Amino acid sequence: MDITFINVCDFIGTLAFAISGIRLASAKHFDLFGAYVVGLTTAIGGGTMRDVMLGLSPFWMTNSFYLICSAIALVWVIIFRKLLVRQNNTWFLFDTIGLALFTVTGMEKTLQAGFPFWTAIIMGSITGAGGGVLRDVFINEVPLIFRKEIYALACVIGGFGYWICARYIVPPLYCSIICASLVILMRFLAVRYRLHLPVLKAEDESKKAQN
Amino acid sequence: MDITFINVCDFIGTLAFAISGIRLASAKHFDLFGAYVVGLTTAIGGGTMRDVMLGLSPFWMTNSFYLICSAIALVWVIIFRKLLVRQNNTWFLFDTIGLALFTVTGMEKTLQAGFPFWTAIIMGSITGAGGGVLRDVFINEVPLIFRKEIYALACVIGGFGYWICARYIVPPLYCSIICASLVILMRFLAVRYRLHLPVLKAEDESKKAQN
Amino acid sequence: MDITFINVCDFIGTLAFAISGIRLASAKHFDLFGAYVVGLTTAIGGGTMRDVMLGLSPFWMTNSFYLICSAIALVWVIIFRKLLVRQNNTWFLFDTIGLALFTVTGMEKTLQAGFPFWTAIIMGSITGAGGGVLRDVFINEVPLIFRKEIYALACVIGGFGYWICARYIVPPLYCSIICASLVILMRFLAVRYRLHLPVLKAEDESKKAQN
Repeated sequence: MDITFINVCDFIGTLAFAISGIRLASAKHFDLFGAYVVGLTTAIGGGTMRDVMLGLSPFWMTNSFYLICSAIALVWVIIFRKLLVRQNNTWFLFDTIGLALFTVTGMEKTLQAGFPFWTAIIMGSITGAGGGVLRDVFINEVPLIFRKEIYALACVIGGFGYWICARYIVPPLYCSIICASLVILMRFLAVRYRLHLPVLKAEDESKKAQN
Repeated sequence: MDITFINVCDFIGTLAFAISGIRLASAKHFDLFGAYVVGLTTAIGGGTMRDVMLGLSPFWMTNSFYLICSAIALVWVIIFRKLLVRQNNTWFLFDTIGLALFTVTGMEKTLQAGFPFWTAIIMGSITGAGGGVLRDVFINEVPLIFRKEIYALACVIGGFGYWICARYIVPPLYCSIICASLVILMRFLAVRYRLHLPVLKAEDESKKAQN
Repeated sequence: MDITFINVCDFIGTLAFAISGIRLASAKHFDLFGAYVVGLTTAIGGGTMRDVMLGLSPFWMTNSFYLICSAIALVWVIIFRKLLVRQNNTWFLFDTIGLALFTVTGMEKTLQAGFPFWTAIIMGSITGAGGGVLRDVFINEVPLIFRKEIYALACVIGGFGYWICARYIVPPLYCSIICASLVILMRFLAVRYRLHLPVLKAEDESKKAQN
């Protein structure tokens, strides 16, 4: 197997996603097994949801690469625990590369399955951000992407970029590159300028809305 | 596309479900994107679980209607935020219509796929009440339908009504109408007379049951 | 239908899983319907996740056995509520038998679908332990299997046992028996000697890892 640029991005993205899951699990005093499962879920959860909805076999079921990546992430966290905070910028970079790649992969797989573009944008966003939602459900927290700075929205914006380019007959490869670049750009701007969406104000009696 | 009575019910039901999700998300200080995702999940989550288990493509992947409905719900909540409490009776009515329609849709789709009636009743209930469970998982609360007045049980009762009618060779259309009417009736009775099921008493040492 | 040894194990395993869900639901003051749903989810949740990922219809959709089992479990908890604590050793035994059987079933189904062995091990573990994770998500707790004594890891060890035996051309039936025995042995050892995996130490600033 030739190692391509995509493979490298996939590796560092999976690593970064798994490490984010393992770190949060360790903050909640999960044991090694639990931390591994949360890390793995963060890395493969989004793509699994996408594949199940597309009616495909989840991608990791025929490729042990992602399980091994998550194991490397676990070993990394154990060994470099005290250095992880200092590596935060690196992990942010890797996480962003992963987010961009996963969004593009999710979109392409959905378009290949014959679904419309807006479905592809949703599937791209689920591929990128869905694992983090599952991770937060497992550690029993409100999913961060619903409350904090722009994360899943970067996937949506990247997806719209793909769509617009494809409309103007830009070749698919360039659409993908533009989509990934937009995701990365949005994430950097969001973190650099602390961009976030407005929070909906609560009504006093909003509890009554629940059925 | 002709707009049918079913389309209208689908619209107001989806709207009511999305609004319930958006209101609860705003009570938890979700941002606009998070509120939209929770609203959308409340509206389409139950049907998505059903379709995945039936081996079908989730219904919303080929029809942008539900995404647009949820967007309308978001705009509605932003604009009429202070009036929502006064509209509670209307939203209760719309939510109930949605619950009835989604239950019938879920049952019919399951029967068409060749599954037995009791599976259809479960799928009808999941279609009606599953989105609310996902909503409550996302906002990190214990699902309300497990603790409060009769909600999913109304779907189950409607489903049994469908089953009994179908046994006595009532034509499918009338079965559906009877099912929907039963769901609506049960919900009204449940809220009017505060009907709820008995709560299981906890043992002192129930924690030990967990593995 | 002849009642086989497997049927008996399936019955007591399903019963034990459902009872564990119902007891925890009652500790959280769920109503009867909620307790039943949580019990049922504990019993069938793992197998449902497996079947959805394998692209099969969930096993319980064509066999009402599991719904009836869960109903029996509910009645049992209501009637014998005060005696349940004294029955804890029995339920531990039944739960362990269920865990072993579900692991073997999950592995066999995955291997029959043509997936590699390591996928079968994961699917076996999901079949055994996935229902408990869903149960804990529904009752809004951090999944216990991520924090407490060895549980899902017993499935993984049993799965490796199956793999090694199959490599040395042991007939499938014996592989299954060895796998089940390993799961049961591991669970007994784990509880008897309070075996658990080390907990990952939290970094001070682990929160920063979250995106």
